[in-house]
Amino acid sequence: MTAMPTRLIIDTDTAGDDCFSLLLGLLHPRAKLEAVTICNGNVPFEQQIENALYTIEVAGRGGEVPVHPGCPRPIMGRWQAATMHGSDGMSEAGFPKARQRPESKHAVDAIIDLVMANPGEISIIAQAPLTNIALAFLKEPRIAGALKHLWIMGGTDNQVGNITPMAEFNFFVDPEAAKIVLGAGFRVTLSTWTLTLKSGSLPADEIERIERLDTPLSRFFMAVTRTPRAVALRRYGRAISTHPDSLTCACALDESLILESDDVVVDVEVGGETTRGASSVYPPRMVERWPDRDANARIIRRADTKGFADMLVSVLA
Amino acid sequence: MTAMPTRLIIDTDTAGDDCFSLLLGLLHPRAKLEAVTICNGNVPFEQQIENALYTIEVAGRGGEVPVHPGCPRPIMGRWQAATMHGSDGMSEAGFPKARQRPESKHAVDAIIDLVMANPGEISIIAQAPLTNIALAFLKEPRIAGALKHLWIMGGTDNQVGNITPMAEFNFFVDPEAAKIVLGAGFRVTLSTWTLTLKSGSLPADEIERIERLDTPLSRFFMAVTRTPRAVALRRYGRAISTHPDSLTCACALDESLILESDDVVVDVEVGGETTRGASSVYPPRMVERWPDRDANARIIRRADTKGFADMLVSVLA
Amino acid sequence: MTAMPTRLIIDTDTAGDDCFSLLLGLLHPRAKLEAVTICNGNVPFEQQIENALYTIEVAGRGGEVPVHPGCPRPIMGRWQAATMHGSDGMSEAGFPKARQRPESKHAVDAIIDLVMANPGEISIIAQAPLTNIALAFLKEPRIAGALKHLWIMGGTDNQVGNITPMAEFNFFVDPEAAKIVLGAGFRVTLSTWTLTLKSGSLPADEIERIERLDTPLSRFFMAVTRTPRAVALRRYGRAISTHPDSLTCACALDESLILESDDVVVDVEVGGETTRGASSVYPPRMVERWPDRDANARIIRRADTKGFADMLVSVLA
Amino acid sequence: MTAMPTRLIIDTDTAGDDCFSLLLGLLHPRAKLEAVTICNGNVPFEQQIENALYTIEVAGRGGEVPVHPGCPRPIMGRWQAATMHGSDGMSEAGFPKARQRPESKHAVDAIIDLVMANPGEISIIAQAPLTNIALAFLKEPRIAGALKHLWIMGGTDNQVGNITPMAEFNFFVDPEAAKIVLGAGFRVTLSTWTLTLKSGSLPADEIERIERLDTPLSRFFMAVTRTPRAVALRRYGRAISTHPDSLTCACALDESLILESDDVVVDVEVGGETTRGASSVYPPRMVERWPDRDANARIIRRADTKGFADMLVSVLA
Repeated sequence: MTAMPTRLIIDTDTAGDDCFSLLLGLLHPRAKLEAVTICNGNVPFEQQIENALYTIEVAGRGGEVPVHPGCPRPIMGRWQAATMHGSDGMSEAGFPKARQRPESKHAVDAIIDLVMANPGEISIIAQAPLTNIALAFLKEPRIAGALKHLWIMGGTDNQVGNITPMAEFNFFVDPEAAKIVLGAGFRVTLSTWTLTLKSGSLPADEIERIERLDTPLSRFFMAVTRTPRAVALRRYGRAISTHPDSLTCACALDESLILESDDVVVDVEVGGETTRGASSVYPPRMVERWPDRDANARIIRRADTKGFADMLVSVLA
Repeated sequence: MTAMPTRLIIDTDTAGDDCFSLLLGLLHPRAKLEAVTICNGNVPFEQQIENALYTIEVAGRGGEVPVHPGCPRPIMGRWQAATMHGSDGMSEAGFPKARQRPESKHAVDAIIDLVMANPGEISIIAQAPLTNIALAFLKEPRIAGALKHLWIMGGTDNQVGNITPMAEFNFFVDPEAAKIVLGAGFRVTLSTWTLTLKSGSLPADEIERIERLDTPLSRFFMAVTRTPRAVALRRYGRAISTHPDSLTCACALDESLILESDDVVVDVEVGGETTRGASSVYPPRMVERWPDRDANARIIRRADTKGFADMLVSVLA
Repeated sequence: MTAMPTRLIIDTDTAGDDCFSLLLGLLHPRAKLEAVTICNGNVPFEQQIENALYTIEVAGRGGEVPVHPGCPRPIMGRWQAATMHGSDGMSEAGFPKARQRPESKHAVDAIIDLVMANPGEISIIAQAPLTNIALAFLKEPRIAGALKHLWIMGGTDNQVGNITPMAEFNFFVDPEAAKIVLGAGFRVTLSTWTLTLKSGSLPADEIERIERLDTPLSRFFMAVTRTPRAVALRRYGRAISTHPDSLTCACALDESLILESDDVVVDVEVGGETTRGASSVYPPRMVERWPDRDANARIIRRADTKGFADMLVSVLA
Repeated sequence: MTAMPTRLIIDTDTAGDDCFSLLLGLLHPRAKLEAVTICNGNVPFEQQIENALYTIEVAGRGGEVPVHPGCPRPIMGRWQAATMHGSDGMSEAGFPKARQRPESKHAVDAIIDLVMANPGEISIIAQAPLTNIALAFLKEPRIAGALKHLWIMGGTDNQVGNITPMAEFNFFVDPEAAKIVLGAGFRVTLSTWTLTLKSGSLPADEIERIERLDTPLSRFFMAVTRTPRAVALRRYGRAISTHPDSLTCACALDESLILESDDVVVDVEVGGETTRGASSVYPPRMVERWPDRDANARIIRRADTKGFADMLVSVLA
């Protein structure tokens, strides 16, 4: 493939695997990362900004990619932290503060301006709750048509969630945003928590391969993933490492990693006693019994774990 | 297996496959069907009563098993018909009226009286919306402990439904009843629409085997399933026949037909914009992130389709 | 008025003012109380049964009016106690156990049998959550037409509640039951918490009038109301006593106590983040903007407090 | 009163009475209208922009006050029109297009920039669905503290609505926005539809007084109100004219028009089967039974109708 590099915005609640998606965007030859936008999500908002800035610095790209802070809370305001990644989102690594400072331009405007100035050119990797993307659409509905592609990490494929039995973290934290974005008319590929469990979990031997690289970036990887790996070991008896965000970015950079996918209708529950944030995924025209709806997303059903690991290793090397 | 026959109540919205579950209960040597109770569901209430009575007559058991009419509407009142089975629920077969007439005792009382008089002895096959069972429990909560086992046909295994994208018919018609029953403390086995699609659909060659029997009951089978087989042929190109209810009854009569099952938490959504009636199924203690709940059902993940077909053929022969 | 006495069932979660409504039913010349049915509500279920039995004994009618226990929990199961009346619902009065014991016939059947055997003759005072009435209707829908009149104490007149800002206790504890009953087609008069505050609060001088009677029943009144009077004194600076239930019964016995009323549409919210159990009251055909609905209740807007107090005093004397 | 003029932004879905609120802001000596922002609401979005521009022109202020288009749809996207004011929102008056054109700066940014550049100085009259205000807050939470005062026309005072039985139009169209704004920490005064009916309906003699002025602005008033006056005549037998928006603006300009008000908790229902968009209004610390919440709004219970009419007449003269 000799395609032009993919022009990217990564919208991130930077903690844990968010960092490695950023590294792919910063360092992979097929990626041209033009802006990082920060959304409420995993850990306290200011910490997420620092995590993104430090990741850029670790990648040796300090000062080259602007970081735009966005919405510090979900639309309806019920933010809650993920606890997987330690209080700093970096397994308590104690990283120093990066030299680069965040931009004053709001993430919502950075997204609108970059997309509207380059119609059909920009893709977004949305790996946080979808507050920023939803507000950008509400403020400028034409971005739905002007964006090249929206890669969303979120939801489940009608399977068990990771924050409630029915809901995945990103969709649960801001279900209204997820519903707005999935109804907005973007070209969407959805990478779910179900996919993460099936194709985005690196087994112990892949992690050892990364450790043996012994480069600054592989050491960064080992430091950032320390807490979730320990949790996985305690919980499942295996020191696996789950990579929802970097798998999504990897698929955006090389679609041949997508082994199975379907065009589906995805909706998100915003009410419900037990289902708030649940994504429902169903065929657009399966049966006669309910009204047809157009597919609004391509859902990835299976991805190439080995190819993804190879891409990650190539960037960390 | 030389076990005592299973003492059964079948709670049914008699139409289509409900009939074959009744035939298993009426004729299989391992079954002792002691009462049939009628619940709102597939087709108009009075028609369901007649369908049950006629099925008993066709089985040559007329007058031997009492039929108790129950609740003509779901708890919150939004009844809707299934359209799969024709307006009479019997593929417009035009069957004559049976001689046996329904009992005056209400289904709710029939259930309570039979269960409370025989603690630990009676099992229920609940193959309709769960209104009758819910009301029996609300009126006499001790039946939850006194019933031997509750076999429920309903819900999905976190997969696409058959009346809305998220919901299976029986749970959708009365989600409040389903939630009440699943929270009541019964010993429950759940046979879902997902299981029906995987293990309860008879392929064309099995249907031909039944047709070739050319007995009164095989002709009854062919008549009752005519409309749904035609729909399936038109829709999927195959004249398959789906058997949610009789598969459930078959598993109750011979548990060796259950090839895979798990103890799970099942909840039912009663609110929700898009998820009313959706069942959520999840492991009772998988992760640290949400509060433990005890498993409230054994869910059948895979059943022995061939063994089920053999049982059905043996009864129709 | 020389009318025939009103044949009554009182459905009650007996605690506090429920007792005085029972006394009106037991002792007022216009009332003929034929059954008392017990519903989940104010205090633990068994205690409520005892409170009703003791009240009948205090009235000198021990053994003459049957008490039928009904549903020990609301339809969806989230019972919660009212705390106003002390743990026994009787201001910790320590009353002895009555000689009369409860019937074995369930309240739901007692209601159905009495109403269906006497079409157009029986009225119900429903002064608890509406679980029993809802289940009676679900089991035998024809009672909606056969009951003479249903007097409901519950809901608010679009005003502040007493258990949440939006909801009154009886409707909040079982909103599904309230919605079922209000949609069932009964002839309904609604006596709300808003009416209680306006017309059903006895001022200090009326309470003194009752105290000065110094009869067994006035002493019973002073004992049962001790806790709520103390709460009112602490909270509002006035030892008022609120009488939602006995005001409702009084209006049923003498409709001239109803000074203002309107035929309205009443609906009850069963979902909602902040409005579960809220009653919405609106004119049936006020404007063109929403679909017409028929009035389903007469709502009492103002009642004769003095006349009510006189009736109460006459019975306690 | 020799106070400094009130520096105002009016956020409007310009149709009908929105115009007269704009006229107060444009022409009353106590008002300094610095920006008009347009929000989805009464009639199609582009029409509302034209209506605002024309109203500025009619007031002789063409080109002096910028008009900023904002969000063309509510947060969750279910816009619906009000039908009261004719298809153009101006009683089909056929007004010409104004010379002034809308600004390119988005309403959300106009609000944020003006408020943040003048902390404690700017008040907003919010007389449309609250989408623009909610998004301004989500993008820049500090405006809640920097705004001088937020005057909201919306909701009901726990009384019947005007678009559903439970909900007023502005809150119903975007209940999520209303809930966000009321929870944001603004200093809020709430002017409800209940208040409009009580104190903001001009009787026939006041309308005749306006007609007799026979000025360009009085003729503008008579033209714009023609359809709703005809509707009122047909519906209620009286050609009254209701003024929710201009009454709100009048109270902001002269608080002595507020005759009764209370500090209350206001919440807005976003779920609910029958109560979506309903506002619940309750005392902050009335009772012990539910958790204390701080008052988040001053609600106007009664206003000076005559004084309001005089202010309107003075501006139209």
